[in-house]
Amino acid sequence: MLRAEIETAISELRRRQPLVQCLTNIVVANFTANVLLSAGAAPAMVDNRAEAAQFAGAAGAVLVNTGTPYEETADAMVAAVTGAAQCGTPWVLDPVAASLPWRRDVARRAIAAHRPTIIRGNASEIIAIYGDQAAGRGVDSADSTSTALAPAMALARNVGCTVAISGAVDLVTDGTRSVSVSNGHEWLTRVTGTGCALGALMAGLAAVSEPLVAAVAATALLCVAGEDAAAESRGPGSFATALVDRLYLLDPADVAARAQVHDVAA
Amino acid sequence: MLRAEIETAISELRRRQPLVQCLTNIVVANFTANVLLSAGAAPAMVDNRAEAAQFAGAAGAVLVNTGTPYEETADAMVAAVTGAAQCGTPWVLDPVAASLPWRRDVARRAIAAHRPTIIRGNASEIIAIYGDQAAGRGVDSADSTSTALAPAMALARNVGCTVAISGAVDLVTDGTRSVSVSNGHEWLTRVTGTGCALGALMAGLAAVSEPLVAAVAATALLCVAGEDAAAESRGPGSFATALVDRLYLLDPADVAARAQVHDVAA
Amino acid sequence: MLRAEIETAISELRRRQPLVQCLTNIVVANFTANVLLSAGAAPAMVDNRAEAAQFAGAAGAVLVNTGTPYEETADAMVAAVTGAAQCGTPWVLDPVAASLPWRRDVARRAIAAHRPTIIRGNASEIIAIYGDQAAGRGVDSADSTSTALAPAMALARNVGCTVAISGAVDLVTDGTRSVSVSNGHEWLTRVTGTGCALGALMAGLAAVSEPLVAAVAATALLCVAGEDAAAESRGPGSFATALVDRLYLLDPADVAARAQVHDVAA
Repeated sequence: MLRAEIETAISELRRRQPLVQCLTNIVVANFTANVLLSAGAAPAMVDNRAEAAQFAGAAGAVLVNTGTPYEETADAMVAAVTGAAQCGTPWVLDPVAASLPWRRDVARRAIAAHRPTIIRGNASEIIAIYGDQAAGRGVDSADSTSTALAPAMALARNVGCTVAISGAVDLVTDGTRSVSVSNGHEWLTRVTGTGCALGALMAGLAAVSEPLVAAVAATALLCVAGEDAAAESRGPGSFATALVDRLYLLDPADVAARAQVHDVAA
Repeated sequence: MLRAEIETAISELRRRQPLVQCLTNIVVANFTANVLLSAGAAPAMVDNRAEAAQFAGAAGAVLVNTGTPYEETADAMVAAVTGAAQCGTPWVLDPVAASLPWRRDVARRAIAAHRPTIIRGNASEIIAIYGDQAAGRGVDSADSTSTALAPAMALARNVGCTVAISGAVDLVTDGTRSVSVSNGHEWLTRVTGTGCALGALMAGLAAVSEPLVAAVAATALLCVAGEDAAAESRGPGSFATALVDRLYLLDPADVAARAQVHDVAA
Repeated sequence: MLRAEIETAISELRRRQPLVQCLTNIVVANFTANVLLSAGAAPAMVDNRAEAAQFAGAAGAVLVNTGTPYEETADAMVAAVTGAAQCGTPWVLDPVAASLPWRRDVARRAIAAHRPTIIRGNASEIIAIYGDQAAGRGVDSADSTSTALAPAMALARNVGCTVAISGAVDLVTDGTRSVSVSNGHEWLTRVTGTGCALGALMAGLAAVSEPLVAAVAATALLCVAGEDAAAESRGPGSFATALVDRLYLLDPADVAARAQVHDVAA
């Protein structure tokens, strides 16, 4: 069932080429745009105070990534989400380094402006965001994805969204159903911005499918591409290049067939 | 005649290595700098309020690209153009997403500060800038380059500059003479920043040749490099890498010989 | 002796994976992060006013690069150094384009906040920073590294830091001992950000070794990787990709064995 939905979601991404407004960081903006273009979406990095809200009305989805927030772009993030709220545009929160209080507050303001469709982060980021929602728990950067599943489920229920935890085994939960994705390769951690690109793919797929399917399909797509890229690369440099190639070349049916997805008990 | 000028322009770019001040966006800054370096120019991204005007006096050309304008960089763009005006430095306007009113106003302020040497954009961007100059016409993102030729010619005459319309067939006009360039490859649309890099190459070439020649030579150079790069690539990732290689390796005479340039009747 | 220290420093970088806080420019942020990841460090680009000082306390080293300073990031640079001062965190200054007065003043404020561990620049940048320390000497962008050795030695003594001059032959001095590194390849000057990446590697190595060793080991590592990358590349595009691969693949003992390091008389 989920396998068929993965195939449909990726096919729809390529067919409809949704416009994805990205408010992301200076480190990964180029890589994120190239990942989205290769996968079939249309990226647009509109992240200033004056235009962010208006543009969110025209976009198929909005990505807010707190990798390098500044005073202006932080305001633009909240504005974009406010614009998304008015138009019903799905949006994805990628709370990079949410252990830092100032940017966690930016994420909090964005969540308050409009319920995100998906929150994606590593285990520590998800726990940090959950702690802020609940009672200010600490953050442990050594958290595994399984450690974060219970906080992620609670966060999904509290906020009313899907939560994706990235790691060696990725977990996606809507608060009731939880799914693991076990594809990937170690070099995905040796290239900057693969996690950020995953959040962007989730935004693109959220424009054309249901949140849980979007998060799982994005994870399967990037991780299967990573497996193929690693097989033809010498190191992290050539791997990053091959990853972008593979996102373009992969057949949606192949991604679905090769996705190692399993339902997980809480 | 134009073929010989293309060869001379690219040879001069490599010989003189002009300093190109780029006020561009966070998505393509790295790719733009690498394209300029491979082609033979010397990029310098000086785009803050305090330094932009002064630096324009030392630069061989200035590029203003409105891909991700912020409050500070928008002011710096106008300041750089003002500095360029005082020193007679040629400058290129790349009005990315000019359908958005705030950044179109930034472009308008820059044009008002000093007549650009070249305006480069896709059909919709050129029509948007023209509409602002004339009577507020709408923007259609599905515009073809031929649809934009009449507005581009009028814009070139009104402003007193060369206008380049990028698309499957590129068009360059100074308001009187119009030229088409039919080289290229579809993957140029699958890598972020190829249009922005084209604007940067036009700036580099405008430092060493006449505006119409600079715009045509830059288009031929990038598109011929794209043809070679596509022949040795598997997808958009390896294509982007090969494109930078080819800009370095291409012989100016080969670019001129392979350029599919034709005069166009208005 | 120095050869053994180079091997130990690179081995320690990989073993300890120090967190390197980078306040760098929009052109090279992605490349810098990938270079650090491939070499074994953990980059974190925290460069806003609100978080920079706090984060410097958690980082193993801080990099301040003045490539594209803005009002907010310039303040963040000084704040990060102030944070580094309070925690004894080593920090590296890369005064890109220090001939421009506004950013030279940013560099000066950072130096005043806390003595840098290493200052890295090309000959003109080192002379510009030295001139500011001493008596406002001019800058000549055609300076060779040997021309800058005397100013670099004086700067090292005045500030109490190590100074690295990048060029065809790299020079590193602590004001008393000076060392040359003669590895490298011309294509390192054809890819944007290799100098900036070198500064970042120095920061990573300064987290795990003495300043002079850190500067020499970083230079040897990047330049030996450049030699290998050039041997397997067609041009600057594939070279940049191969460079990142090689930083990951190189054995510390091989770097040490191949490093062409020599003591230099002042």
